[in-house]
Amino acid sequence: MRLYGYSRSSAAFRVRIALNLKGLSYEDALIHLRRGDQRQPPFLGVNPQGLVPALEIDGQTLIQSLPIIEYLDETHPEPPFLPRDAAGRARVRALAAVVACDIHPVNNLRVLRYLSRPLGHDQAAIETWYNHWIAAGFEALEGLLSTSRDTGTFCHGDAPGLADITLVPQVVNAERYGLDMSPYPTVSRIYQACSKLDAFAAAHPRRQPDYEE
Amino acid sequence: MRLYGYSRSSAAFRVRIALNLKGLSYEDALIHLRRGDQRQPPFLGVNPQGLVPALEIDGQTLIQSLPIIEYLDETHPEPPFLPRDAAGRARVRALAAVVACDIHPVNNLRVLRYLSRPLGHDQAAIETWYNHWIAAGFEALEGLLSTSRDTGTFCHGDAPGLADITLVPQVVNAERYGLDMSPYPTVSRIYQACSKLDAFAAAHPRRQPDYEE
Repeated sequence: MRLYGYSRSSAAFRVRIALNLKGLSYEDALIHLRRGDQRQPPFLGVNPQGLVPALEIDGQTLIQSLPIIEYLDETHPEPPFLPRDAAGRARVRALAAVVACDIHPVNNLRVLRYLSRPLGHDQAAIETWYNHWIAAGFEALEGLLSTSRDTGTFCHGDAPGLADITLVPQVVNAERYGLDMSPYPTVSRIYQACSKLDAFAAAHPRRQPDYEE
Repeated sequence: MRLYGYSRSSAAFRVRIALNLKGLSYEDALIHLRRGDQRQPPFLGVNPQGLVPALEIDGQTLIQSLPIIEYLDETHPEPPFLPRDAAGRARVRALAAVVACDIHPVNNLRVLRYLSRPLGHDQAAIETWYNHWIAAGFEALEGLLSTSRDTGTFCHGDAPGLADITLVPQVVNAERYGLDMSPYPTVSRIYQACSKLDAFAAAHPRRQPDYEE
């Protein structure tokens, strides 16, 4: 099994956490996004979309982090990433989607680059943009998490799952950009609980071989 | 069953298609996004995130279009929206994610508004932005669809599913913004096949009671 990733990619970070939680070992294929390796032929042969992560598994290449994680959960059911009931599954997938659809894509490297060129914005405007979308998403998540009896030590009950896998890389990004986390105590509490687990800690960007300050 | 939606919301459009394909009837609760009704207390009581769609079903309110659609598929299995094999499911979910994670969020109304104010871009710059991200995503989709033996009349085989449900609203948006579709013949062919089905046609923005030119 080979994971095409990048230390700073939070979508690849999600897949690293998922593989670790399932106890699956994998080989790293590191694609240097800031250098543009994702747009070079070797990687475009793996994923024509030119985005990480991509996972070589069971004789095929899968793309898109959440579909990859659902595949891992279907083919390696223990420990489960989703509750057994349809309502619980919808809740956990929705929490994951708040991050994966409403925060992360708007703050992706290629979007930030477009704001810089051709749109001509400076680093301060880009950081304001970045934190604006994280704050909007975290406000929603804090509301959803703090008001639900389904929330436990983790986003849904007392075992980590898909929502936690998606949340943690987003909090790491927020910290890197200096977002004030104090309005999001439930998000912060769950983040702390996850960070104590080896599967999450070992997946952190700082622990990857291609990490640069 | 009550669907909080808006004719022009492509995420609500996805859920309308899904409900129609499952043969489920629903009551419309229309939230006028351009007027800002999604940020008013009545709707914030339904979805504190202030986004459509939200679906009242089985005594609960579900949010986020793809999790809602997966819930409908789990609770009303026929006709299925996902293949039976894990690899096929991963492929279909990935095709859906290219639209739902890589195109649509970057072109959402709230993002376009931010480009206008505070960032100060004019309509021409916003249209260029809009078409840039659709083109990037459609190029990826065209590659994924045109090179796979799994592609049939629809994105995966000869029955419509989750990927088609996600694709069609994005093509409708592309047409509205005048994107040249000729580089994407497979995307266009599948869009045409879907448009012939009542479930898709009846979900079109133009067919909704709140539609305005």
